[in-house]
Amino acid sequence: MENGNEIPEDANEHCPGPQSESAGKSDSCAGCPNQEICATAPKGPDPDLVAIAERMATVKHKILVLSGKGGVGKSTFSAQLSFALADMQYQVGLLDIDICGPSIPKMLGLEGHDIHQNNFGWSPVYVEHNLAVMSIGFMLPNPDEAVIWRGPRKNGIIKQFLKDVHWGELDYLVVDAPPGTSDEHISIVQFLQETGIDGAIIVTTPQEVSLIDVRKEVNFCKKVGIPVLGVVENMSGLRQPVADVRFMRVSETGEEREDTEWALEYIRQNAPELLNLVACTEVFDSSRGGAARMCAEMGVPFLGKVPMDPQLGKASEGGRSCFTDQKCGVSAPALKRIIAKFIPDHAISGSLVDDGA
Amino acid sequence: MENGNEIPEDANEHCPGPQSESAGKSDSCAGCPNQEICATAPKGPDPDLVAIAERMATVKHKILVLSGKGGVGKSTFSAQLSFALADMQYQVGLLDIDICGPSIPKMLGLEGHDIHQNNFGWSPVYVEHNLAVMSIGFMLPNPDEAVIWRGPRKNGIIKQFLKDVHWGELDYLVVDAPPGTSDEHISIVQFLQETGIDGAIIVTTPQEVSLIDVRKEVNFCKKVGIPVLGVVENMSGLRQPVADVRFMRVSETGEEREDTEWALEYIRQNAPELLNLVACTEVFDSSRGGAARMCAEMGVPFLGKVPMDPQLGKASEGGRSCFTDQKCGVSAPALKRIIAKFIPDHAISGSLVDDGA
Repeated sequence: MENGNEIPEDANEHCPGPQSESAGKSDSCAGCPNQEICATAPKGPDPDLVAIAERMATVKHKILVLSGKGGVGKSTFSAQLSFALADMQYQVGLLDIDICGPSIPKMLGLEGHDIHQNNFGWSPVYVEHNLAVMSIGFMLPNPDEAVIWRGPRKNGIIKQFLKDVHWGELDYLVVDAPPGTSDEHISIVQFLQETGIDGAIIVTTPQEVSLIDVRKEVNFCKKVGIPVLGVVENMSGLRQPVADVRFMRVSETGEEREDTEWALEYIRQNAPELLNLVACTEVFDSSRGGAARMCAEMGVPFLGKVPMDPQLGKASEGGRSCFTDQKCGVSAPALKRIIAKFIPDHAISGSLVDDGA
Repeated sequence: MENGNEIPEDANEHCPGPQSESAGKSDSCAGCPNQEICATAPKGPDPDLVAIAERMATVKHKILVLSGKGGVGKSTFSAQLSFALADMQYQVGLLDIDICGPSIPKMLGLEGHDIHQNNFGWSPVYVEHNLAVMSIGFMLPNPDEAVIWRGPRKNGIIKQFLKDVHWGELDYLVVDAPPGTSDEHISIVQFLQETGIDGAIIVTTPQEVSLIDVRKEVNFCKKVGIPVLGVVENMSGLRQPVADVRFMRVSETGEEREDTEWALEYIRQNAPELLNLVACTEVFDSSRGGAARMCAEMGVPFLGKVPMDPQLGKASEGGRSCFTDQKCGVSAPALKRIIAKFIPDHAISGSLVDDGA
């Protein structure tokens, strides 16, 4: 376990094979079962990386959306960021590189769509004329089937997404990554590094167990040379108008009985001013300072908090933009403010619709 | 993408190398860069698998804890299950195979502990005399460092955990896996299959986007031949006594001001009966039937719901058992009922402490 978390040597420990840029025997090949094959392979730039660079020549900005831990709302953020950028009249691509658990098709309302091939390559699926999406979710004959793939095969499909998808001219390519710092992350960085990555947005919840993993993610970005555009604290306290709360009676034996109708009538009769208030719960313990403090300690920008909003979850599950869904009044303004911080050319405090790129 | 989610061929597409049981050239080696090396390797059983079988000979039951999606409370469940089994006087081992995001050391209150080696192998870290834990988290010189490892290296450390850790006599080995169906999952199943796995518990939240991934996980278990002991629906509605709720006023510009003290006094004066109620929020949309319906559709046991309980989160973050933490009154009874369903020899409805195995 010495040097257990050193990179980039570790990241390349199992080199991508004789086709790679690193072809040709080097010191780091010692012990590698591929070394004999690599040594005889032709040297020179990886033709796949050349093809990726050609595809990416028409993409102005590339943003990775990362998280240390899963289930913090990373895909929700990627989806809503893409909706927001499209509302601002940018030409947007959203690439889902979560191979074993793709959520993006559902969150963009695109379940059941297929990928088609044309002369220019694989055609992504369009939500609107300026919002294109690619995910392995579009390629599975049965959505319930598990994608049981080891790393090299996941890396292969990510390379194909970058090499073969015909995005056309894009202002922004948003890449939604799975949680962690393993194959998908090393690969997307290696494949895109030559073409330039604007930076990464890291999504977390306020709880310590997520922040531990975010620190790892920040250090991953530092080690591989990706700027951290900022950290978003999601699910930062549940906010709900008192009128939307359900009320239960719990018996001594722990049994529950709903009594919401009675409770709301009782409030209207006796304490009507409560209905002007918002009930608030810190679902995750943020007593140690949450993401804001972690950002200060690690020297990365803190972009803000998004309250936990059941309506945002519903909009995402329904494949809808929270910015046009009237019910997301708790979360949409917070998301707008956050996006305005790293899309600096556009003032989106009032409306997300702007004059164009 | 034809045969995109077929296994086990896919799972072995990149074979574990010349040391593996599959050593010797076969049809499936076509195109593999290792094939020349493999072909000259000695045939016969993988000595590592033999070593694993020897270690596992002293382990009576092995339970995998899986989830499709991250952040559903899988590690919390693994930790609390281990506490519960230890309370029942079983001899328990908890193995964390989440290599890039290990949460188990924190959730067992063991942060900062190291692994030591002795004549019998690696010694796990003990919470109590009958609860032993192993995680890569114990092996990192700096907990903030990212573990940037591709699949083969993750598989290597999992093999070492199984081969080199001296658990001694165990009634239960609980294995906490990362989300997904990739390297860690394929490896743990391959490494343990010879020695027998009792089955898998799959943890989910009620929302569709998690259930999609759970269906994949159930199909993974079916394909690799692991019985599904059952599915746990976690974070199934937030429950909180009205007296614990915080109240906010929100201005027209969206600014918040806390007014909990005023609100609670107003309730005490005008509507005191509210204080006997529990406020309840469906954080995740379960209108499509949640995990119970999914289980019925897929023919796997539904073990029950655990309400979202901020106190369970706090206990877990603090490394404490929810069964001895008096504040976890909302979640602990639900967890007890669930555990009693697949640890059938023990009636734990009243107390988790039993007469022993």
